[in-house]
Amino acid sequence: MYETIKTELQNGILTLTLNRPDHMNAYTEKMNDELLHFYKNVNFNDDVRVIIVTGSGRAFCAGMDLSEGGSTFSSEQSSEDYRDLGGQVSLQVYEVNKPIIAAINGPAVGIGMTMTLPMDIRIVKKDTKIGFVFGRRGIGPEAASGWFLPKLVGIGKALEWTLTGRYIPTAESVETGLMQYESEDPLAKAIEIARDIVENTAATSNSFTRQLLWKMMGQSHPIASHLIESKFLYWAGQNADANEGIQSFIDKRSADFSMKASDLPNFFTDKN
Amino acid sequence: MYETIKTELQNGILTLTLNRPDHMNAYTEKMNDELLHFYKNVNFNDDVRVIIVTGSGRAFCAGMDLSEGGSTFSSEQSSEDYRDLGGQVSLQVYEVNKPIIAAINGPAVGIGMTMTLPMDIRIVKKDTKIGFVFGRRGIGPEAASGWFLPKLVGIGKALEWTLTGRYIPTAESVETGLMQYESEDPLAKAIEIARDIVENTAATSNSFTRQLLWKMMGQSHPIASHLIESKFLYWAGQNADANEGIQSFIDKRSADFSMKASDLPNFFTDKN
Amino acid sequence: MYETIKTELQNGILTLTLNRPDHMNAYTEKMNDELLHFYKNVNFNDDVRVIIVTGSGRAFCAGMDLSEGGSTFSSEQSSEDYRDLGGQVSLQVYEVNKPIIAAINGPAVGIGMTMTLPMDIRIVKKDTKIGFVFGRRGIGPEAASGWFLPKLVGIGKALEWTLTGRYIPTAESVETGLMQYESEDPLAKAIEIARDIVENTAATSNSFTRQLLWKMMGQSHPIASHLIESKFLYWAGQNADANEGIQSFIDKRSADFSMKASDLPNFFTDKN
Repeated sequence: MYETIKTELQNGILTLTLNRPDHMNAYTEKMNDELLHFYKNVNFNDDVRVIIVTGSGRAFCAGMDLSEGGSTFSSEQSSEDYRDLGGQVSLQVYEVNKPIIAAINGPAVGIGMTMTLPMDIRIVKKDTKIGFVFGRRGIGPEAASGWFLPKLVGIGKALEWTLTGRYIPTAESVETGLMQYESEDPLAKAIEIARDIVENTAATSNSFTRQLLWKMMGQSHPIASHLIESKFLYWAGQNADANEGIQSFIDKRSADFSMKASDLPNFFTDKN
Repeated sequence: MYETIKTELQNGILTLTLNRPDHMNAYTEKMNDELLHFYKNVNFNDDVRVIIVTGSGRAFCAGMDLSEGGSTFSSEQSSEDYRDLGGQVSLQVYEVNKPIIAAINGPAVGIGMTMTLPMDIRIVKKDTKIGFVFGRRGIGPEAASGWFLPKLVGIGKALEWTLTGRYIPTAESVETGLMQYESEDPLAKAIEIARDIVENTAATSNSFTRQLLWKMMGQSHPIASHLIESKFLYWAGQNADANEGIQSFIDKRSADFSMKASDLPNFFTDKN
Repeated sequence: MYETIKTELQNGILTLTLNRPDHMNAYTEKMNDELLHFYKNVNFNDDVRVIIVTGSGRAFCAGMDLSEGGSTFSSEQSSEDYRDLGGQVSLQVYEVNKPIIAAINGPAVGIGMTMTLPMDIRIVKKDTKIGFVFGRRGIGPEAASGWFLPKLVGIGKALEWTLTGRYIPTAESVETGLMQYESEDPLAKAIEIARDIVENTAATSNSFTRQLLWKMMGQSHPIASHLIESKFLYWAGQNADANEGIQSFIDKRSADFSMKASDLPNFFTDKN
């Protein structure tokens, strides 16, 4: 049982809610531990087809909990051992084999924003407060956002936002590709997309696609993608989901995919 | 002579037409062989200054020909030897030394979309049907699109489109940078751009530029670009095209470039 | 004392002006030497918090000075030794530890555009003439723009612009992310942003952020970012700026950061 987050699974959609509403879901070490635990285990649960991440109450996540004041980022660990909390979670999210949708239901600043960058689809509440405010707190980008952010919006916007630390109008966040949608009700929109994915796409396809796109970001030549795609297509050609996908198309009916995400072999080596 | 494609060369512009109009130009092994043959040889033909790729009839390419049903992706080759058809072509397109414009004259789904990603300029027919629908067929991104797509539109849109497999409004495809233009007549627009390139730019410049931009995508530090650009500029400074380009600018007249794409030395090593 | 540029430092904002107004600030070897000297030394000057680069008179920079005609790019050096002028400067700009804002006050073509790509924020004069015109002069992208340009606007726009060499409407330059803003008065807008950065962000944060985002562009896995961010956050947690940033937030007052850019250890190895 978790204390700072809650999870609910319904029709293949797991909704993970950041759950410290009295503190605007501010991020704590406990929350970090629980998110790590969740993401480490969710890959093994084939009942989960899509993950939605949202916040309880009016905020999504107001950033790191600063109740310890100026010592928030001081640590008793050695410099060699210290690892940024948010980055631990981002690296775990990077390895998840199901689509992840962030339903940013209210203010999201600092780690409240950067935790969503390794997710796949971001939907923001219209006109809520978002920003990469680190420079105004004397710190810097974290949660591996130095790697993730420019891949979403290009290096130009990424630099402007992080160097100024300004708040970002949600319309701008959509125009630049940081968010895919703005909505009066991000959770409802997220559920709509999640249902479409659950009902119409194959779990094996999504597991492969998510890993492929993220992991090819680091490859220097398209042949890396070609070789892995070839292995996957060969495998798919011998399995039920591709057969059903094509047959249903020919039959002009909805596809009824039977395979599980865990049926997919691991096509990605450590070097990816 | 080709069976599934046709080519026509006029005033330096080679138009390659996918030519199975009764099957919405659906992709077959034969078409793949013919495209590979074409792209392997076009680099040696200096009469070709710009390539336009379009479709015969009302479609651009409706994806893989599924007339073999569920066994479309099954193969008699071993898993080690199997290579995705579309990826073979994409890797060849990546090596072409002339600008390539896709005139997407009608529906383009699956490989009909991914085959255009390694091209340079995409023009789409307004309000036609396009999408990366693989997840809805139980398969996944191919034609090396795992590498190409995020480089065009950022990782966010690439993930959303491939994980949902939804159709993409053409207006959205332009806003996100997947397409450079939408048009009622994509071929006419492509010809307009191709003519401008043929009449006003140097073949040596375009051959260098195309290789440089694609191949620097995989380099980790800007010095890689600097070193190759330096070699090219040194070479250009001793050759006719740069001299004519500058002199014509000073004389306020149109440039008349005399060199051929094949005059350009190979500045790119295997590692690029 | 510089001949082709001038510098003025006021309230932490250093304005560097390209200063050959009678030649539309066309780029010369002398200007290149002076820019190199400036950028090599500015990292050691903690009084400089933000750099603005602009042009004297009505142009920003009309490209390479072509007064030597066709021999502009010929060189007495050997092919092995020759290094593109603009690329030397771009590599130096890449290493600067302060935010750099380009106030593109008028026409910027060729190196006038490419010199701004390694900067952080670009503001363009509404409806002025800009473009990557190299192909129309028989040369090719330089100043390491083969690496920088696609990282700002995606590979699609980068290819279209460089292969056609066409002028780019300034509205398009903003929509695509090449420019962050267009303005009737780019210098005034640049000063507004620079003041906000000087007054509200920490020099240590900005030095770290600028290096992090640029240098993570070349890293293949997010763990590279996580490890460097962890080292920085550990260090920040033991130093004054992070303490002040958090305490001021809790106190609901403006932060008064005391540290200097040069106080930041070097977290980046040669491999980055």
